[in-house]
Amino acid sequence: MILTVTPNTALDVTYTVDGLRPGGVHRVRDVRHRAGGKGVNVARVLHTLGADVRAILTAGGATGTAVVSDLAAAHVPVAAVPIGGETRRTTTVLADDGSVTLLNEPGPRLTEDEWQTLAAAVRAREPDVLVCSGSLPPGAGGYAELLGDAPSILDTSGEALLAGLAGRPSVIKPNADELREVTGLSDPVTAANELRKAGAGAVVVSLGPEGLLAVTGSGNWHATPSTVLSGNTTGAGDAVVAALALGLSRAEPWPDILRRAVALSGAAVLGPLAGDVDLAHYEAEQGLVAVRARPD
Amino acid sequence: MILTVTPNTALDVTYTVDGLRPGGVHRVRDVRHRAGGKGVNVARVLHTLGADVRAILTAGGATGTAVVSDLAAAHVPVAAVPIGGETRRTTTVLADDGSVTLLNEPGPRLTEDEWQTLAAAVRAREPDVLVCSGSLPPGAGGYAELLGDAPSILDTSGEALLAGLAGRPSVIKPNADELREVTGLSDPVTAANELRKAGAGAVVVSLGPEGLLAVTGSGNWHATPSTVLSGNTTGAGDAVVAALALGLSRAEPWPDILRRAVALSGAAVLGPLAGDVDLAHYEAEQGLVAVRARPD
Repeated sequence: MILTVTPNTALDVTYTVDGLRPGGVHRVRDVRHRAGGKGVNVARVLHTLGADVRAILTAGGATGTAVVSDLAAAHVPVAAVPIGGETRRTTTVLADDGSVTLLNEPGPRLTEDEWQTLAAAVRAREPDVLVCSGSLPPGAGGYAELLGDAPSILDTSGEALLAGLAGRPSVIKPNADELREVTGLSDPVTAANELRKAGAGAVVVSLGPEGLLAVTGSGNWHATPSTVLSGNTTGAGDAVVAALALGLSRAEPWPDILRRAVALSGAAVLGPLAGDVDLAHYEAEQGLVAVRARPD
Repeated sequence: MILTVTPNTALDVTYTVDGLRPGGVHRVRDVRHRAGGKGVNVARVLHTLGADVRAILTAGGATGTAVVSDLAAAHVPVAAVPIGGETRRTTTVLADDGSVTLLNEPGPRLTEDEWQTLAAAVRAREPDVLVCSGSLPPGAGGYAELLGDAPSILDTSGEALLAGLAGRPSVIKPNADELREVTGLSDPVTAANELRKAGAGAVVVSLGPEGLLAVTGSGNWHATPSTVLSGNTTGAGDAVVAALALGLSRAEPWPDILRRAVALSGAAVLGPLAGDVDLAHYEAEQGLVAVRARPD
């Protein structure tokens, strides 16, 4: 079983407007709500692929109830840790000119008890792969407290990423900007090796349309998609993490894992909302991804 | 007692961001929630002034519960008509450059039963003044069904305003744009007289920083503030309606009503959120408003 952890759950709200004009009054044409947070998106993708997955998340107030109900409707198995604060919302404003604007509320502060309950819920399970995703809300401990002996993926940024390396995650998945931010180094292979020295087993760097760079203990690879896709990139990184989790759970070789991850990332770009994937693209693209070994 | 009716209640959400950039990702620094909808704002202002007021509104789902709880905390008397849909949200994005951007969700559809329950709740009361404010959600009947023999104010726009004239409201309060939109006439006195012929007892046109123009059966007046204020204009029109309601309930002469309305409008511009008024400005400004008679 793959277990995803989302300490800073969100209700993702998508607004469609004619155009977004700062200072203007906008009638929202369409309003959609969906359970969100990076770990939730990972769980949704894995569930769509038929994997055995469970999402542990925090849920508080009416917004937390809406998140849990939405996942129940999608049949994604959930273990919700109740919190006193109100689960945050993230609002995506889609305009007819194609612009995508995000407004992310800060998460509610967790009490020490709530964090410990979340940590205990993670430790009580013995997953094949543990996935820790997203930002940490105020009051949360660190991801290092959650990471145990099972293979694991840590997908976060900044301080939460650096502190989490003490838990020795099997894989981390920064994008190029996040990698530069935490290391101060511009060469991605050099930067990735720094993070490996600090505790990461492997580093998979997402390079947007240029695919994925993997720096691992058994070699380095660059995997590139067959075509550049346009669409909704919001959940693409979460689809990469879902593919990495699936590959780790099956102990596949890195080139196979990367083929799957690039294909699933593209499938997410073609999906209308974060957590949706185009299964036809996923199947077709796996055979078309180019994987090349890279020097250390 | 003054009764306000808000068929299309909202939870007003205010986000503070560094700057709003279409296509950007924004961390929301501050999130505030407040019961909203124009009639709710009118009731809040009247309650602040110590008037005997009650707000009838629709409330559905968790958002409706939040609206009712917020008004209870402010001690504004409320009669909520439960609806099956979820009460809408309106989001105001305040940026550090001073820009104010609104994103208004559409209201939930009312069933015929829900509309009739709202109408019955209005008819069951015998207010001194009835205030009908704001847009009509899908499925609602018309404001004409709510207006009875009591003095009344109708503050809405477009089709809802035109159809509402059949109920013979004592006063309507379009702004200059709304007046032009429904009449197709650019001269406000001519346009106002058209709407009086169609059923309105008096027409008070809000002219923004240039004050108020009143076209009534007993004369026309233009009331102007002593100074132009900068601030939050979102609730200024609702403050005008609150002052008109108070004046009607006391059967004051029009020049006195207009002095109060211009002063209260300015007091609302100085308030931080819609429904807030600066009482010191309200008291001081009433003696400074200039009221001049205008030809027909």
